[in-house]
Amino acid sequence: MANSEFEYVRKFEEWDALAPSNWIVVRIDGRGFSKFSKRQNFAKPNDRRAIDLMNAAAIEVVKQFTDIVIAYGQSDEYSFVLHEDCQLFERRAAKLATSISTAFSVEYCMQWGKFFEGQELERPFPTFDGRCVLYPKKSILRDYLSWRQADCHVNNLYNTTFWNMVKGNPDTDTPAMTTTEAELALKGTFSADKNEILFKRFNINYNAEGEVWKKGSVVYRKYEDKPSATESTPEQAFGKSSDEKKKPLSKTQMEKERKRKQKARVVVEHVDIIKDKFWQENPWILG
Amino acid sequence: MANSEFEYVRKFEEWDALAPSNWIVVRIDGRGFSKFSKRQNFAKPNDRRAIDLMNAAAIEVVKQFTDIVIAYGQSDEYSFVLHEDCQLFERRAAKLATSISTAFSVEYCMQWGKFFEGQELERPFPTFDGRCVLYPKKSILRDYLSWRQADCHVNNLYNTTFWNMVKGNPDTDTPAMTTTEAELALKGTFSADKNEILFKRFNINYNAEGEVWKKGSVVYRKYEDKPSATESTPEQAFGKSSDEKKKPLSKTQMEKERKRKQKARVVVEHVDIIKDKFWQENPWILG
Amino acid sequence: MANSEFEYVRKFEEWDALAPSNWIVVRIDGRGFSKFSKRQNFAKPNDRRAIDLMNAAAIEVVKQFTDIVIAYGQSDEYSFVLHEDCQLFERRAAKLATSISTAFSVEYCMQWGKFFEGQELERPFPTFDGRCVLYPKKSILRDYLSWRQADCHVNNLYNTTFWNMVKGNPDTDTPAMTTTEAELALKGTFSADKNEILFKRFNINYNAEGEVWKKGSVVYRKYEDKPSATESTPEQAFGKSSDEKKKPLSKTQMEKERKRKQKARVVVEHVDIIKDKFWQENPWILG
Amino acid sequence: MANSEFEYVRKFEEWDALAPSNWIVVRIDGRGFSKFSKRQNFAKPNDRRAIDLMNAAAIEVVKQFTDIVIAYGQSDEYSFVLHEDCQLFERRAAKLATSISTAFSVEYCMQWGKFFEGQELERPFPTFDGRCVLYPKKSILRDYLSWRQADCHVNNLYNTTFWNMVKGNPDTDTPAMTTTEAELALKGTFSADKNEILFKRFNINYNAEGEVWKKGSVVYRKYEDKPSATESTPEQAFGKSSDEKKKPLSKTQMEKERKRKQKARVVVEHVDIIKDKFWQENPWILG
Repeated sequence: MANSEFEYVRKFEEWDALAPSNWIVVRIDGRGFSKFSKRQNFAKPNDRRAIDLMNAAAIEVVKQFTDIVIAYGQSDEYSFVLHEDCQLFERRAAKLATSISTAFSVEYCMQWGKFFEGQELERPFPTFDGRCVLYPKKSILRDYLSWRQADCHVNNLYNTTFWNMVKGNPDTDTPAMTTTEAELALKGTFSADKNEILFKRFNINYNAEGEVWKKGSVVYRKYEDKPSATESTPEQAFGKSSDEKKKPLSKTQMEKERKRKQKARVVVEHVDIIKDKFWQENPWILG
Repeated sequence: MANSEFEYVRKFEEWDALAPSNWIVVRIDGRGFSKFSKRQNFAKPNDRRAIDLMNAAAIEVVKQFTDIVIAYGQSDEYSFVLHEDCQLFERRAAKLATSISTAFSVEYCMQWGKFFEGQELERPFPTFDGRCVLYPKKSILRDYLSWRQADCHVNNLYNTTFWNMVKGNPDTDTPAMTTTEAELALKGTFSADKNEILFKRFNINYNAEGEVWKKGSVVYRKYEDKPSATESTPEQAFGKSSDEKKKPLSKTQMEKERKRKQKARVVVEHVDIIKDKFWQENPWILG
Repeated sequence: MANSEFEYVRKFEEWDALAPSNWIVVRIDGRGFSKFSKRQNFAKPNDRRAIDLMNAAAIEVVKQFTDIVIAYGQSDEYSFVLHEDCQLFERRAAKLATSISTAFSVEYCMQWGKFFEGQELERPFPTFDGRCVLYPKKSILRDYLSWRQADCHVNNLYNTTFWNMVKGNPDTDTPAMTTTEAELALKGTFSADKNEILFKRFNINYNAEGEVWKKGSVVYRKYEDKPSATESTPEQAFGKSSDEKKKPLSKTQMEKERKRKQKARVVVEHVDIIKDKFWQENPWILG
Repeated sequence: MANSEFEYVRKFEEWDALAPSNWIVVRIDGRGFSKFSKRQNFAKPNDRRAIDLMNAAAIEVVKQFTDIVIAYGQSDEYSFVLHEDCQLFERRAAKLATSISTAFSVEYCMQWGKFFEGQELERPFPTFDGRCVLYPKKSILRDYLSWRQADCHVNNLYNTTFWNMVKGNPDTDTPAMTTTEAELALKGTFSADKNEILFKRFNINYNAEGEVWKKGSVVYRKYEDKPSATESTPEQAFGKSSDEKKKPLSKTQMEKERKRKQKARVVVEHVDIIKDKFWQENPWILG
């Protein structure tokens, strides 16, 4: 029963390395989460325990994969950003997508009890599927992150209005609606309309809502000793002289860098990442 | 803060549907399992609890994904076979790979306590990475499965001999070896040599070893009412008339089929899948 | 000015080998041929010189690439079929597609004068773009070829009817139509309707039209000494014993085979390749 | 004979659009050109007619495809650069590679007689295979072009020395060598060594050799009215405000732009494209 006559089947495996010098985003999404969140009675429009669990899982993933430079999450999704020069798993797409999505899924399940005390997990257990997307420029990567954060805001404003309409408000004589009625009522409305509905009928100032809901969650490493100005080599097509080129790090440097990252504190913040301020204050993140 | 100006970033997502009419294998592998198995003191050469846990996780995955027609596992790997006509997730590679590997990883962690009582799981939690491989013909898919089972046999014979040499046997005055010594001693040996070493020095008849170690584990659905001969449309290039063609199932039929599969018993067997016997007895598996 | 500092750019080239054990079709299409055929006054509905030139070019391509087992052409397109085991250019997609489409395009231009005497070629010169498509089974490859031949028939019936309507027929008092009128008149008609129009108004028995228009052109090698039964290894999932496996040819055998192919006569025929007859009479083509 | 039952085969065609916002290089190479150049008695080390023909073909290709922003050629290869925002053929890889390589191959054959008067082209006719390579940043694209030009220089210095050694020089009592001897003699030599050999033995000052051989050929559009400063939007990760974003051109603008390009003179120059000077003087090329 020699193995050799069958070994030709290896040739069917494709080499799936991602193109070099592209930012890699691994975005994970809860599989069947609208069903799951109902079954587990998640509060509406937002459940603090659920979002804290998402963030706790994300923190562990960022800690484990030092190649992740930043992560952004909202609702049941999380985007993990790997540096454009990242060499983890030789940039193989399936390895990257499955390693990060399994690590996240397992963390979510293992930490469940901490956030949903007394609530048992049942089959099918919650899992998160994932995929890799490439962004060739830093500016486009930032647009990707802006897209997710703008999406967070748009969805949260909608959901906040929607679920308040479903609950109704006796103080303002606002009757409870069915979900279908609320959906219909909100069709075609603009942000301003929703802000007004919230304010007039439910006495809610949307701007005063929690940042965690309006902005989502940003997870990254915080260094005590700010890395010295890491000359974030912008793409200067003209005027770049060859000695300005980034030199690849030596093995010792890489190991040192990895350790520095492992020691760094991983934080969760609910801040704006669309405007430049965050990036100007933390230039090393995409440096 | 409209979303629209950023939405162009969606165009960077690639459509990764796998080629039609190819058998899909999702093979998962334990990430960093040589380290993990040491940390958790897995018995050598084989740990029954560990393999039972692998199989228990695989069973739940097969139950959950009715598109899986058969699965084969050994050591810390499992191959899940999806039918060549499978349309799950529109055959998107990342969806398939991450859904199956997350489901397996979560099952492994959640069921850990049942098999390793009193042994706590610690970070990094065990996970399994995965990838899709396509096989264009049934015969090549069978060669793939044969490759894995032959590999199981070859590895198990080696490991059994190796670890016995490391332990030594006072009954036959066989001294314990270091792992380096055993490795050296086995270099270049053939199966026959290892069989003899086991028999003469350790009084072990390899053929009498457990089938679970020699054959690995085959997971599939067992039907009480054998599906009627499922016309396993072989590729008959000549003589195929057009009315013999497989008709796609209607939605009702598909739903009925899915339910039939969900009701079927999922079994684990340690049988030969290289020879034709197994496939002749279960023609509907690849039918 | 050393080269080495720039050499990293090679890593951006992707390896594009096509999956093994799949039939490869390189289909080429005339680029901008509706414009080109007008400029060159091709006869309508069919121009014999144009189709003869297509076939002459295809013959040379088949002669040059001994890996092509059969080719099928109609209108301004040609499909070249490479054997599922073909190793030409290590099965790299871009190499295959560009080699065949450039060879065809060059032949078309260089032979132009032979078929369109006195008619000068002008810029933009006619070219044919190409692409590779994979078919995992022989039966699906045959369905592909059937698709092209059925398409030939459908288009030819339409065009024959359409252009006769545009010309009109004084013998039956059928007035000439504008192209728009003819288009409108044919909208929603079935084959039977077109056959009747041709017969009644234009006294044309479509079945008696030339096979070259109804069937298109099949190009393949004709051997005087029929290859001995080459046991066209059908996919027999059950009952295949391992010694029946195809053995890869030795280098000497491959060279001999290549020479045999180069000596073979390459023929053009206008025959049915949808039904089994052709394939039963020429089993070695896909053998 | 309806077409519909076969139409499912279309699903086997893969959509091969190249990732957005990447520079596309289509590099073509002469197929079997060492044989071909011998058969056609190309002068050694360099044949002016051959290189003039290459450039004449490239000019026509650049004229025909207004999406090509610059082309660089040397020996029997040419690289055609398409703008990172290019939408030609929806960025489909096979379409781009085959359209450009067929256009080039056909031009080469059709113009052959002009450059090789009295020398007949014989089968197999010369063709050029091609492939697409993606470069995510302007700086990397420039490194790609630098790589090709540095390669041109390195090869030309080698070839010039090599062929002079093979010819020998009676003036300096330098005997003719066989090609094997010359190859051996040059093994391990540096540029300086070759420069000295040329100077001392053959009285050749390499620096005074023709720029066409040392630099290769750069083909691009020359505008009389320099485009006004084309705001070459550098990647400014920090400090980019959203209103600075490139707006997509309207259809009218695009048509106008295409016409302007068609009117522009296409020139061939033998200039340095490694240093910044060329790009600073022609900022609109990659603008």
